[in-house]
Amino acid sequence: MSDRWIEETFHADWRVSLRASKVLHEVKTEHQHLVIFENPTWGTVLMLDGVTQLTTSDEHVYHEMMAHVPLMALDKPKSVLVVGGGDGGVLREVLKHDSIERAVLVEIDKEVIDTALKYYPGIPQDAFNDPRTEVVIADGLKYVAETKEQFDCIIVDSSEPIGPSAVLHTKEFFADCKKALTKGGILVTQNGLAQLFPDHLAGTTRIFASLFKRVAPYICHQPCYFGGMFALNFATDSKSVLKVDEKILAKRARKGVTGAMKYYTPAVHVGAFALPADIARVAEEAIEAGRAGDDRGYVHETAQPAIPKPAKKPVAKKARSPAKKPAASSKPPAKKPGATRRKAKSAKSES
Amino acid sequence: MSDRWIEETFHADWRVSLRASKVLHEVKTEHQHLVIFENPTWGTVLMLDGVTQLTTSDEHVYHEMMAHVPLMALDKPKSVLVVGGGDGGVLREVLKHDSIERAVLVEIDKEVIDTALKYYPGIPQDAFNDPRTEVVIADGLKYVAETKEQFDCIIVDSSEPIGPSAVLHTKEFFADCKKALTKGGILVTQNGLAQLFPDHLAGTTRIFASLFKRVAPYICHQPCYFGGMFALNFATDSKSVLKVDEKILAKRARKGVTGAMKYYTPAVHVGAFALPADIARVAEEAIEAGRAGDDRGYVHETAQPAIPKPAKKPVAKKARSPAKKPAASSKPPAKKPGATRRKAKSAKSES
Repeated sequence: MSDRWIEETFHADWRVSLRASKVLHEVKTEHQHLVIFENPTWGTVLMLDGVTQLTTSDEHVYHEMMAHVPLMALDKPKSVLVVGGGDGGVLREVLKHDSIERAVLVEIDKEVIDTALKYYPGIPQDAFNDPRTEVVIADGLKYVAETKEQFDCIIVDSSEPIGPSAVLHTKEFFADCKKALTKGGILVTQNGLAQLFPDHLAGTTRIFASLFKRVAPYICHQPCYFGGMFALNFATDSKSVLKVDEKILAKRARKGVTGAMKYYTPAVHVGAFALPADIARVAEEAIEAGRAGDDRGYVHETAQPAIPKPAKKPVAKKARSPAKKPAASSKPPAKKPGATRRKAKSAKSES
Repeated sequence: MSDRWIEETFHADWRVSLRASKVLHEVKTEHQHLVIFENPTWGTVLMLDGVTQLTTSDEHVYHEMMAHVPLMALDKPKSVLVVGGGDGGVLREVLKHDSIERAVLVEIDKEVIDTALKYYPGIPQDAFNDPRTEVVIADGLKYVAETKEQFDCIIVDSSEPIGPSAVLHTKEFFADCKKALTKGGILVTQNGLAQLFPDHLAGTTRIFASLFKRVAPYICHQPCYFGGMFALNFATDSKSVLKVDEKILAKRARKGVTGAMKYYTPAVHVGAFALPADIARVAEEAIEAGRAGDDRGYVHETAQPAIPKPAKKPVAKKARSPAKKPAASSKPPAKKPGATRRKAKSAKSES
């Protein structure tokens, strides 16, 4: 067999190669390298600029934990806003909740959705055809800043804090999210590989603590993001939704959900907030700092390009209004380039 | 920089390369490739035959979870047997329990201990000098079969079920362990990457269920074992030690432990038993099968050699009495070679 090995180049100190038994789609330009391929263990894999974005063998972990932890914590949530998440995985899980009447998905790039429907339709399944779904092709940052609507839950299924996506990890954006939440609503986002690179978790936790009464990072086991636990983060002003009794969660799972789950259980929900001692300390210190006014976020300094770029004149990339919404950070540059896992769902660059 | 990249070759469908900023020790023969090197993110790394065995940045996860979950579940445990674990990491954690009067470590290869003391002394620390410690250089299989002693807890810190170590994953061995446990004692072992390759977890769970009244796999986030959650397994005849209230665990941690922990907390202890839905189903089915008499274990069929072997005449390897204690399995051959993570602590082959 002449299988190709496709390498992750995101991390400075380790690289993962995945065997491509069949390449389904590849776009290789000066600015971008997108490849979708099959791997006997991992299923269909999307790798973008040298970073594994998703695999069909384990996408359920992240998507279930992003959707069900906040939605099970709420009593009959009606409305959800998903920012990003154009592959439809989070949306698919949101729609399993019978109480949901409206699910808005704001994706900046329609091609992300089209790519999912073409190459891994098992991820969105019928989510985009659900009558409760509204898809908005728009800049999520702008949408959240301008919307007059409020949602019971906002799920930010964004890329890593790098390049154009960095703005979706800033205080300005999260403050706009807060305004777009109903009373007691929940905001959830992702925070990368917490054990190796806790700075991302710390940054978001500081911002959340400066905006919300309650902040609680939680974790999941996402195999394709090589390097240990994958962190999510949870913010709310409601005390009652943070530590929901497992029995109440079980009742909600039994009575309010249509469709099976492969990862989430009420016990997993409770256990996901049990951070290892060292990560718990990072989170506690970040919460204290955020309460005391230190609201520095976290932005990647650099990522390693998947393809060595030829020395040509740079072509301007359209960022998400960087002048208006800078990826503000007074934090010293991250010491470790490629320090957290990118969770880009974009199957296309933004230029 | 002319850093070397050292590749893991254990898994058929993916490979992880770690950057070696400095090689500390390397033994490369026809039969074995052992390399100890430094990596800026991972610290000191031991790779044996193309499989990362441990890194100093995250060894605490596995060692704490192997030791503290059973020992905190017991009320003032006095005696522990560690089978394997010559790096001293599990022993170091065991000795943090003030009630422990006797800790026996049975390691087949003294060089594993010497290597740890030389290249990563931060792992054993002073464990081998502790007056409660007894080190026995012997075959763990034979030791357990022949000992007249009983221990409150037996921790099997062994390699993957492959080659000579396969016998440490068989019913015969675990039955001998049971005989060497005090009433209500606990047996713990490792079960590899449960999400990608649940067969190992299922095999041990079947055997445990055929021998013990209670079986409960549990999980941890071990970054250097790339590929998602790392499973451990827990067997006992005592009901009271399986689901210990978090408050009791907290009291024991407060009053009965000397020394800090980086990963373990009482909440982590409870949360570690919250298996994702799909893995919980694997465990439940395996428990049912084991109770019904299906006690098939799991043995790797093959691993990929780290170095392509020259076509010379094979040299016999000394196995752990294979004729007497076969790695018995009526299970069909594993479908996926290299299916679970090897957790070999051996810094030397057994020949």
